[in-house]
Amino acid sequence: MLVDEGLELLTEAEAWDLLAGGTVGRVGVTVGALPAIFPVNYEVIDGTIVFRSGEGTKLSAAAAGAVVAFEVDDFEVVDRTGWSVLVVGTAEVVHDLELTMRVLDSQLEPFAGGRRATIVRIRPGFVSGRRIVPSPPGRDLRP
Amino acid sequence: MLVDEGLELLTEAEAWDLLAGGTVGRVGVTVGALPAIFPVNYEVIDGTIVFRSGEGTKLSAAAAGAVVAFEVDDFEVVDRTGWSVLVVGTAEVVHDLELTMRVLDSQLEPFAGGRRATIVRIRPGFVSGRRIVPSPPGRDLRP
Repeated sequence: MLVDEGLELLTEAEAWDLLAGGTVGRVGVTVGALPAIFPVNYEVIDGTIVFRSGEGTKLSAAAAGAVVAFEVDDFEVVDRTGWSVLVVGTAEVVHDLELTMRVLDSQLEPFAGGRRATIVRIRPGFVSGRRIVPSPPGRDLRP
Repeated sequence: MLVDEGLELLTEAEAWDLLAGGTVGRVGVTVGALPAIFPVNYEVIDGTIVFRSGEGTKLSAAAAGAVVAFEVDDFEVVDRTGWSVLVVGTAEVVHDLELTMRVLDSQLEPFAGGRRATIVRIRPGFVSGRRIVPSPPGRDLRP
């Protein structure tokens, strides 16, 4: 199914498979009325996106209770192939002890140091994915 | 300079160097009051971020005249190293003939097919970058 010239829509199952296989995603939030995007390493747990953040950071503050975007992608520059998955959902700081222990026991160790003791979970409202449809080289705007 | 536990701030010159060397970035916009992030391949021209989009797409509509976020990053999962650069600026659809011709003559050919005849430029309001400070493995939340 084509969603945009040169892009095809993934099924929701394909999008979830790609999400579950990813490591680094980007969170889109609003900070002081301005848009911002922060990369995070994450895991999919119980159909939610979970990442760790430092206490009192812009990201954890902005994400708490907000509707956020979350994006994962992978592109091969040489082949001009790739895909992206976009999640829109509600973010919340996790206080649930069971989930906290599961995150601690998971492989979700933040790349950056520091304690990053705040666990943020995004509950997806919707998930969509797009893949580049391979096309012949030499396309151009000119007729 | 530490901006967040485990992250250090890049100078603006370093951030611009990384931006200029990138190929794929992500645009954070608002679509129907919801946040969204779309990957694009881009070039830096005259200190602005330039990418091509399809006419009438969500992205080109959302970006036109809006304050948007633009993010580029690169992470090495194995080494747990990486950096990210965040630009916040005003996006506009380019009607300027000279810039249009420069874009056509540049290497900025969209990965995805289709005409993508809309050229969007983001004029940066501010640019910031962060780099992961290498840290010993085995960090943990637990004391």
